[in-house]
Amino acid sequence: MTQTTRAPVERAESAHTREWMRRFQRVRSASEMLCAPLETEDYMVQSMADVSPPKWHLAHVSWFFEAFILSPYLDDYQTPDPAYDFLFNSYYETHGKPFPRHLRGTISRPTVAQVYQFRAHIDREMERLLSAPPAEHLDEIIDRLEIGLHHEQQHQELLVMDIKHILSCNPLHPVYRQDIRDRLLSQADRTPTPSEPRWHRYAAGVRQIGVDYPTQPAREHDGDGFVFDSETPRHRQYVAEFELADRPVTNAEFIRFIEDGGYSRTELWLSDGWSTIHRTGWQAPEYWEKVDGRWHTMSLGGLVPVDPDAPVCHVSFYEADAYARWAGARLPTEAEWETAAEDQPLDGHFVEDEVLQPQAPSQTSGSGPQQLYGDVWEWTGSAFLPYPGFTPLEGSLGEYNGKFMSGQMVLRGGCCATPGDHIRASYRNFFPPQARWAHSGIRLARDV
Amino acid sequence: MTQTTRAPVERAESAHTREWMRRFQRVRSASEMLCAPLETEDYMVQSMADVSPPKWHLAHVSWFFEAFILSPYLDDYQTPDPAYDFLFNSYYETHGKPFPRHLRGTISRPTVAQVYQFRAHIDREMERLLSAPPAEHLDEIIDRLEIGLHHEQQHQELLVMDIKHILSCNPLHPVYRQDIRDRLLSQADRTPTPSEPRWHRYAAGVRQIGVDYPTQPAREHDGDGFVFDSETPRHRQYVAEFELADRPVTNAEFIRFIEDGGYSRTELWLSDGWSTIHRTGWQAPEYWEKVDGRWHTMSLGGLVPVDPDAPVCHVSFYEADAYARWAGARLPTEAEWETAAEDQPLDGHFVEDEVLQPQAPSQTSGSGPQQLYGDVWEWTGSAFLPYPGFTPLEGSLGEYNGKFMSGQMVLRGGCCATPGDHIRASYRNFFPPQARWAHSGIRLARDV
Amino acid sequence: MTQTTRAPVERAESAHTREWMRRFQRVRSASEMLCAPLETEDYMVQSMADVSPPKWHLAHVSWFFEAFILSPYLDDYQTPDPAYDFLFNSYYETHGKPFPRHLRGTISRPTVAQVYQFRAHIDREMERLLSAPPAEHLDEIIDRLEIGLHHEQQHQELLVMDIKHILSCNPLHPVYRQDIRDRLLSQADRTPTPSEPRWHRYAAGVRQIGVDYPTQPAREHDGDGFVFDSETPRHRQYVAEFELADRPVTNAEFIRFIEDGGYSRTELWLSDGWSTIHRTGWQAPEYWEKVDGRWHTMSLGGLVPVDPDAPVCHVSFYEADAYARWAGARLPTEAEWETAAEDQPLDGHFVEDEVLQPQAPSQTSGSGPQQLYGDVWEWTGSAFLPYPGFTPLEGSLGEYNGKFMSGQMVLRGGCCATPGDHIRASYRNFFPPQARWAHSGIRLARDV
Amino acid sequence: MTQTTRAPVERAESAHTREWMRRFQRVRSASEMLCAPLETEDYMVQSMADVSPPKWHLAHVSWFFEAFILSPYLDDYQTPDPAYDFLFNSYYETHGKPFPRHLRGTISRPTVAQVYQFRAHIDREMERLLSAPPAEHLDEIIDRLEIGLHHEQQHQELLVMDIKHILSCNPLHPVYRQDIRDRLLSQADRTPTPSEPRWHRYAAGVRQIGVDYPTQPAREHDGDGFVFDSETPRHRQYVAEFELADRPVTNAEFIRFIEDGGYSRTELWLSDGWSTIHRTGWQAPEYWEKVDGRWHTMSLGGLVPVDPDAPVCHVSFYEADAYARWAGARLPTEAEWETAAEDQPLDGHFVEDEVLQPQAPSQTSGSGPQQLYGDVWEWTGSAFLPYPGFTPLEGSLGEYNGKFMSGQMVLRGGCCATPGDHIRASYRNFFPPQARWAHSGIRLARDV
Repeated sequence: MTQTTRAPVERAESAHTREWMRRFQRVRSASEMLCAPLETEDYMVQSMADVSPPKWHLAHVSWFFEAFILSPYLDDYQTPDPAYDFLFNSYYETHGKPFPRHLRGTISRPTVAQVYQFRAHIDREMERLLSAPPAEHLDEIIDRLEIGLHHEQQHQELLVMDIKHILSCNPLHPVYRQDIRDRLLSQADRTPTPSEPRWHRYAAGVRQIGVDYPTQPAREHDGDGFVFDSETPRHRQYVAEFELADRPVTNAEFIRFIEDGGYSRTELWLSDGWSTIHRTGWQAPEYWEKVDGRWHTMSLGGLVPVDPDAPVCHVSFYEADAYARWAGARLPTEAEWETAAEDQPLDGHFVEDEVLQPQAPSQTSGSGPQQLYGDVWEWTGSAFLPYPGFTPLEGSLGEYNGKFMSGQMVLRGGCCATPGDHIRASYRNFFPPQARWAHSGIRLARDV
Repeated sequence: MTQTTRAPVERAESAHTREWMRRFQRVRSASEMLCAPLETEDYMVQSMADVSPPKWHLAHVSWFFEAFILSPYLDDYQTPDPAYDFLFNSYYETHGKPFPRHLRGTISRPTVAQVYQFRAHIDREMERLLSAPPAEHLDEIIDRLEIGLHHEQQHQELLVMDIKHILSCNPLHPVYRQDIRDRLLSQADRTPTPSEPRWHRYAAGVRQIGVDYPTQPAREHDGDGFVFDSETPRHRQYVAEFELADRPVTNAEFIRFIEDGGYSRTELWLSDGWSTIHRTGWQAPEYWEKVDGRWHTMSLGGLVPVDPDAPVCHVSFYEADAYARWAGARLPTEAEWETAAEDQPLDGHFVEDEVLQPQAPSQTSGSGPQQLYGDVWEWTGSAFLPYPGFTPLEGSLGEYNGKFMSGQMVLRGGCCATPGDHIRASYRNFFPPQARWAHSGIRLARDV
Repeated sequence: MTQTTRAPVERAESAHTREWMRRFQRVRSASEMLCAPLETEDYMVQSMADVSPPKWHLAHVSWFFEAFILSPYLDDYQTPDPAYDFLFNSYYETHGKPFPRHLRGTISRPTVAQVYQFRAHIDREMERLLSAPPAEHLDEIIDRLEIGLHHEQQHQELLVMDIKHILSCNPLHPVYRQDIRDRLLSQADRTPTPSEPRWHRYAAGVRQIGVDYPTQPAREHDGDGFVFDSETPRHRQYVAEFELADRPVTNAEFIRFIEDGGYSRTELWLSDGWSTIHRTGWQAPEYWEKVDGRWHTMSLGGLVPVDPDAPVCHVSFYEADAYARWAGARLPTEAEWETAAEDQPLDGHFVEDEVLQPQAPSQTSGSGPQQLYGDVWEWTGSAFLPYPGFTPLEGSLGEYNGKFMSGQMVLRGGCCATPGDHIRASYRNFFPPQARWAHSGIRLARDV
Repeated sequence: MTQTTRAPVERAESAHTREWMRRFQRVRSASEMLCAPLETEDYMVQSMADVSPPKWHLAHVSWFFEAFILSPYLDDYQTPDPAYDFLFNSYYETHGKPFPRHLRGTISRPTVAQVYQFRAHIDREMERLLSAPPAEHLDEIIDRLEIGLHHEQQHQELLVMDIKHILSCNPLHPVYRQDIRDRLLSQADRTPTPSEPRWHRYAAGVRQIGVDYPTQPAREHDGDGFVFDSETPRHRQYVAEFELADRPVTNAEFIRFIEDGGYSRTELWLSDGWSTIHRTGWQAPEYWEKVDGRWHTMSLGGLVPVDPDAPVCHVSFYEADAYARWAGARLPTEAEWETAAEDQPLDGHFVEDEVLQPQAPSQTSGSGPQQLYGDVWEWTGSAFLPYPGFTPLEGSLGEYNGKFMSGQMVLRGGCCATPGDHIRASYRNFFPPQARWAHSGIRLARDV
């Protein structure tokens, strides 16, 4: 009788689990679609230490499901090769010793085809597990599955970033997708529409920042409430009155900064930024080069003219900070950004728009700041530090965010390479201040 | 008649200026007393890139008065050598190109004697200026004089740090002052008095953090209200309920962390910290070495046994953070620290106590946390970032703090090498997270 | 009539050119056969700065024919892509600016398939040129063709070296060819046949060392007389009485050196060698690792036990020199080596033996020293310097050898990865003293 | 009776020992005279890794006598500080672990005064030993004393080199001795006397190169026959016909090379040289700088105009080699140099001439090449390798030369910083090819 009573629940569970399975398939397939335009050779390249070969990404996100779900919860699980556990672990020091990151480009075997076989193997085994999940572990399995999918979505954005960097190192300027090239070139001759940014004002007050974990376990909700541990807990912050620009800084504006000697005026720069631009020789954003007197940029459509109206992209925190100082403004804090973003629609361009390059806003919609989401991540002036009351996850997954809370700055809002269902107001991305290969841009704030 | 009327004011000014002159002499003389035990050779050493030769410190703080006061405001001022302006500029990029920092140890001329002559020259010229200051610039002169004196006090602490590092590199373990050695050795055989830290609880609420500039110009106040631009403005922060330990972590406690495998447990460390200890091989605080099974530390009294009851010192932010995690606690934020410190007495050991080594507290006094001031700087969990509404000083002096607001963590409270009249609740010291040659220690906090 | 008279000569020329064409096809095809066992991914890897991706080798040797023969001598020659001239130039600074060597592994396009198309293009165009060569340039064309073929043979040996290194970096120990693995494993259980080296004595005297260029142009000889400029001219050297070991040092002997503490006895090492082994941590030859107490080595058949009777291989000059000192002997000079080798048969194992691993000698043949040729290159004690009267080739080809005559040591005799028709007594190979990825071994000499 | 018979011999020995004592005092005193113009601060500087602080030189050459003579042979010898044995050992790995070379500039204690006391202590103890030497060790003592004195003379030249480098790093251009400045300035306005080099021809033949050790022990000869092990044994070399320039290359000639684009013409350079000048940015010899359009050079008399007639100095092997190629010539081999030098007088400028800067020849004397000795060391095209039959000394002294026989090029003839009684035709100096802080110049040779 007990069983009879529980039957509906189990069926409900089962329906829920099937929904998770579909979600799994959707995310897994999206990763492979991003790689579809690649040649086998492209999958192998590690063009700088921060970049991973696309092959490695595809294998690593699969390993994540093997290490944290299949191995612990699927009794008779067999790995295709025990060495994968070493090769495709990224940085989980508590889960064995990872293969040295900077050598990922030296590993030609398993081949790309074998990595796709590994993916198919993981997909089959996950399907097998989810079709008859051990009831006593179902909560943990779904919890980890949810993290695994968000993890794979993060690597989808990294795939776009890394593919762009890989192709950009090639003097042949290879084109990833011809349709992207056609689209970008067709925009190149539009008449620029210069405008001054307008400012939105926000009153002072104690704000609620961050989010709490959903109160229901993942298996009982629809998957939309996911948050990373670094976004928790929801807590109070006092935010003084401030103003925020209604749109990101454009390429045209950044070109004025360059032409005004921005890169050679020491008073505009943080000390670390000044030594960074001297060490690297930066004189413009990453991927920019001047062709016949006009700024061009490497894109996933090859080398194309810089669109003056589009948000400036691929700038470091140092450049964002120097630009803001030049403009008589500053970068927003993450609390300010979240205050402004909390009730704004997700109206920018995301990875599913398939242009993979920040775009000028089509039409100003609504009354708040535009493009807070999508197109370019926006550097904040906040260091990536734990929120008051932060507790990392238990075990190896606790290494996900917490151990990086040093030496990094927070970016907000997602970009043209982010899956649209992966971003939210509380999402905290982070990079070291000198990083430029993310789609990082600038939004200005100022004191009142 | 007008003159007669103004005479009392002028006399008042004059009296005030004489007071500043006395203050100037006192600070200048303190620097030289710190160097009195040195051999000429000690003045020359740059034992690592962060360290400057003592000779350079003595010249640089004098150059500060030349560059920012004497050259602009004393009409017929003559420098002893125009090259000094290049050799002894530290990092003011807007004031010409500084001599490369890492080569400071290669400059044997001017000699130590010539540097003392330069100091005497500056002292005489400052006296000349202050004895008949140009009325129209008096405010700026006193403002800059005040900064210059605080600047020299900061270098007094650096002198102590650098002298310790310089002597510590010598396998002969030279003794800076024999009386310090005698005192430290006499303490070495005291019976340790182990105790558990007690916790002070602070209620949640919006706090006032930081300070505003004094409303009166420096020439009209007594000099006690000085603050650096980075401490301003006073502003609101919401601080959640928290607890703070009643004393810094002791050497005995840190030895337990070491013996519990603290340096080899990856889960305790930030990612950057873990790679730092692997790159450097750190297994204990800076200056510690084991002699016959007992931990010793290099001090300004040479190599002495570690005092179990004294606060642990010369740990990096990474080690402080890992220790806190091991202890089930965390580092305080700077707002928490300031909240607790605001009404506490300055009861620790400072440079004028002349032991130059953190000491166990003599007697617990009062009811609040002990030793918030003096003995060891306390790492906070806060990055060194501008306060809301922060505006750096104009001109070259604007490079004093603002341009370092990247990649550094805040420390609070001063130490055994800090002049006692140089510290206050709002004072923000900062170092990169891997730095260990400051007298940096640990105070624990925790959520409620 | 004149034409009639010349006709036979022209026909002869034509026949000769056809012979060169066949030689061209033979060499070109050999390169591709070496790559046949590779996966596409293997072609992409640059596992250290000295290694080039196999794809690059295949393209570069083709570029050589384009740059030095087709572009200058085939009027309507069209390159498939002008960028190849930049991408596949190795180091000819006088022929434009080469693409940075250490970034070769980042270039995914042209793909492997496109590189094979480039090869086919070059082959077709060379055939077109040679089927109707411009008479006035025939001599230069054949001269350069001859160099181009020897150049490609050198890259065949590099291909073997680089493929081995690439696969050795993979913890999966991939197998290049299963038949090589089978052969090496079948040898692993042979009973070792230890023996002391015997010594051959050579009288003192003035020797003729090196060779002169052939007196006939290449088009009139059979191609066997080719020499590199660095081997010329033939000249006199006084060689004192000396003795040479009858065979290379074996793995068993080198293991005795290791077990006798060879790597930790400072008195055995050159100063640069001592710092090299401390910096690198070398404790055995490249590719060796101990498995269950027995030395194994990575080979093109994967990880296999070290054959005690085979010549030790993949040692640096420093290790060869230290071994010789330990054994109470020294390395031969190149004049001594050439004196001994001049009339010896080419009786070792070469690339066409297809085992690609140094082998124990099958049967001692003849009365002189064994295995002077093949199996392992033998480090000499001679620096790679110009012979008296040396003149490099004109133009870019003059960069072939001469500009490397600094900081390198000479090796003699070829190895198991060298084409057998590419080696001769006067052949001077060279590597920096710390290089180990060539098949470099040790033969002892001593004074009488 | 036996005693009586031996008495005259003992007295002879005694007289001989007194002569060695006087020699000892002469050499020791010369070191101190070189340092007399220094400030205490100058003694402390290590301006690059290759440079040692003058204080270290003075202590190290004294340590040599302690470690190799006093400690083993003077029974009751007491060192002033046992740590000196660690601090002042240079590189004798077999004699304990030397203090890390690159940190020598960080050791402020012992002070300069204490180092002079150490010297005086060594001098007294050596006097005590030599006044009553143990008969059974007299031979070894004198042998080692002789090496110790030549060792100290080598460090006298290093002192001159290092003092010049130390002062050259100072933007104040300090003057070591004013009389040197006066002399160099007085030469600056001489009319240059341009001339083409003339060539001396030498017939082909088997030559005797190098020297043998003296057949008598040191205590029985007058000390003039000393040679280093690297110069031995005398042996045969075949030297082909060659020509040698009658004088070193002058500054005027080298300026023509610069003005002809010598530093930017890739075809003139060895590959390692080309990458060296690109890495370093060299555009002229070390110490040169252009002031108001005229080349000046830092000297021990401060910054002075380059003397067009004087030999070019402070060039690397790479620059010497590139210059020779530009001039259509080459560098001589060491056998050629020694052939030419064997019967030439020592007619150049040495350290005892006290100008410490290469000088134009005063008067051409004799019929052979001029200035083979003194003024500038002459780079040869020979690598520093063991002569046939070379055997290093036993024990730690065997580390003196032999272990450096890798990666270095030979220079011949001594320079303006060499003691005149320290040089001879067979003397082999050596430096890495990129070194420039020795007084290294160029003499051309060519094939006939």
